[in-house]
Amino acid sequence: MGEFELLERVRERLPPDGPRLRLGSGDDAAIAVPDGATATSVDALVEGVHFHRGQSSLGQIGHKALATALSDLAAMGAEPGEAYVVLGVPTDLDEEGCLELLDGLAKLAAATGISLAGGDVTRAPALTLAVTVVGHAPSPEQLVTRGGARPGDVLVVTGEIGGAAAGLLLEPETGSSSHLVTNSVTKRELGELIRRQLEPQPRLEAGRALAEAGATAMIDLSDGLGGDARHLAKASGVGLQIDASALPLAVGVAEVAADAGREPLELAIQGGEDYELLAALPAERLAEASAAVEVVGVTLTRVGEVVSGEGVEIRLPGGGRLKPVGFDQLS
Amino acid sequence: MGEFELLERVRERLPPDGPRLRLGSGDDAAIAVPDGATATSVDALVEGVHFHRGQSSLGQIGHKALATALSDLAAMGAEPGEAYVVLGVPTDLDEEGCLELLDGLAKLAAATGISLAGGDVTRAPALTLAVTVVGHAPSPEQLVTRGGARPGDVLVVTGEIGGAAAGLLLEPETGSSSHLVTNSVTKRELGELIRRQLEPQPRLEAGRALAEAGATAMIDLSDGLGGDARHLAKASGVGLQIDASALPLAVGVAEVAADAGREPLELAIQGGEDYELLAALPAERLAEASAAVEVVGVTLTRVGEVVSGEGVEIRLPGGGRLKPVGFDQLS
Repeated sequence: MGEFELLERVRERLPPDGPRLRLGSGDDAAIAVPDGATATSVDALVEGVHFHRGQSSLGQIGHKALATALSDLAAMGAEPGEAYVVLGVPTDLDEEGCLELLDGLAKLAAATGISLAGGDVTRAPALTLAVTVVGHAPSPEQLVTRGGARPGDVLVVTGEIGGAAAGLLLEPETGSSSHLVTNSVTKRELGELIRRQLEPQPRLEAGRALAEAGATAMIDLSDGLGGDARHLAKASGVGLQIDASALPLAVGVAEVAADAGREPLELAIQGGEDYELLAALPAERLAEASAAVEVVGVTLTRVGEVVSGEGVEIRLPGGGRLKPVGFDQLS
Repeated sequence: MGEFELLERVRERLPPDGPRLRLGSGDDAAIAVPDGATATSVDALVEGVHFHRGQSSLGQIGHKALATALSDLAAMGAEPGEAYVVLGVPTDLDEEGCLELLDGLAKLAAATGISLAGGDVTRAPALTLAVTVVGHAPSPEQLVTRGGARPGDVLVVTGEIGGAAAGLLLEPETGSSSHLVTNSVTKRELGELIRRQLEPQPRLEAGRALAEAGATAMIDLSDGLGGDARHLAKASGVGLQIDASALPLAVGVAEVAADAGREPLELAIQGGEDYELLAALPAERLAEASAAVEVVGVTLTRVGEVVSGEGVEIRLPGGGRLKPVGFDQLS
């Protein structure tokens, strides 16, 4: 397997260790000196289940494995600290392939400031990645769970949604939908939708800005706004009212949906993998939160409010309402 | 997949969360409040690579996945804190099978006081477990790396070695070597050798005792004493001299080796998976360390010393010497 040599070659490509890491991989365990609290999450990607080689480059697979794990830290408002990577390597992936994959991962690690602190490389029948990420905060109270939303809070979403689902519709053609291009969506915009699907960007800075601006509850949009909103509502013991017309659709989602005979709202509400953040905030801190999120280059959109009760209600532009059970069967 | 229901059913079987865990699985990330330093390690077990169903029970597979990860914490002298488990489930393993596996893991978690704080369950072509464990210490200086052994230190080994390799020789017959039984090894002793292979016990308490007694370097014996000693020697920049006649062979190893036409020392030096600890200690603290380790029910054996130079030399009973390169080709 050449695990040691492989990790050595990867290590050369990594940024210097972060301030909390005292001893990286190579011993029995990595040693870190945390702040007052840690947020830890683990995510696994398995070939044939979560991705297909051929539809994603190896670098994109490595990127996405770390990105989806980091998105959980973003949703806690944690500062990224250390990542631990298990790589299961099938016989048809050679060392250069492993390096390409780990390079994609390492590039995102460098961009987000997370240290690759350890890992395990093993043979496996299918390409498998399991990534554990540890984030930090001065105290547990400064991390944002799903459970603190209160009636009266406003609901906000970072960035734009529906893009990853639209990218999935485009993927088989990889941007070659020329009639869409003439229909006022540029080739660059279509490429951006595909990139959202293959190379999601965890909203780490926006998550920290929201935490500092008093977010009472937060979750990342991995399963889709509808389902993730319901998780937040349930954990907080509140109801959520979402205004569908306020949802910030990514550029090109409407056109791609129309082209595929789908509803843009379906992509925005049911489509997963946008890895944007849904947060609840006290209404009086909305302006402060918007400004703080915009400082890090991300838009913040008010999409609804927290009410007493339970479940999620989505108000449609025509005056209709999707009920908690209803939107699961939206398609 | 029923991931949530499965984890809910597992959670019912778990001991209460440890003192550092503020929020367990169910949110975007688990929240912990660490002491001054953490030791983190990740280990993966893949079916067909590390184990075969049929040779191990599902409970034993779950046990071993956590045990091998915890052994790394033992080798740091860390107190077990939290575990995060990725479970890749093939289509031929049903929910009851998953529960049996996770029960084996949960039982060891309860016995060692580690909290199962999070995880991810996914489909996979082969049964796959990736376990991340986090251990704690008041400060990074109280964790023992591989790198601090100094010439003049004594080398010690916990418990008994060679047993797991002997158990592997017995495994196909699962203890039915009746002529061995008559040859003065009891059936119970053979069963113990098999158990060492299938259900290794991480030496967590002994590891902490050694750390407190001033261990300067420590490593767990996963690959075999020969190779692991070399890792320690290299990391510390020292030489190690090991007295083969002093090695604490597990009961029955000599007989099983003889029966299989193998050398007992080969099983002890090359056989991996004993998950005992090899440590270096200042000579003047040996008595204190032995007493502290015996308090937790484990024997401590002096097996050699640390010298200046590099590499590992094993002095054989007949007066021969195995050199660092040599013992790799011992079999």
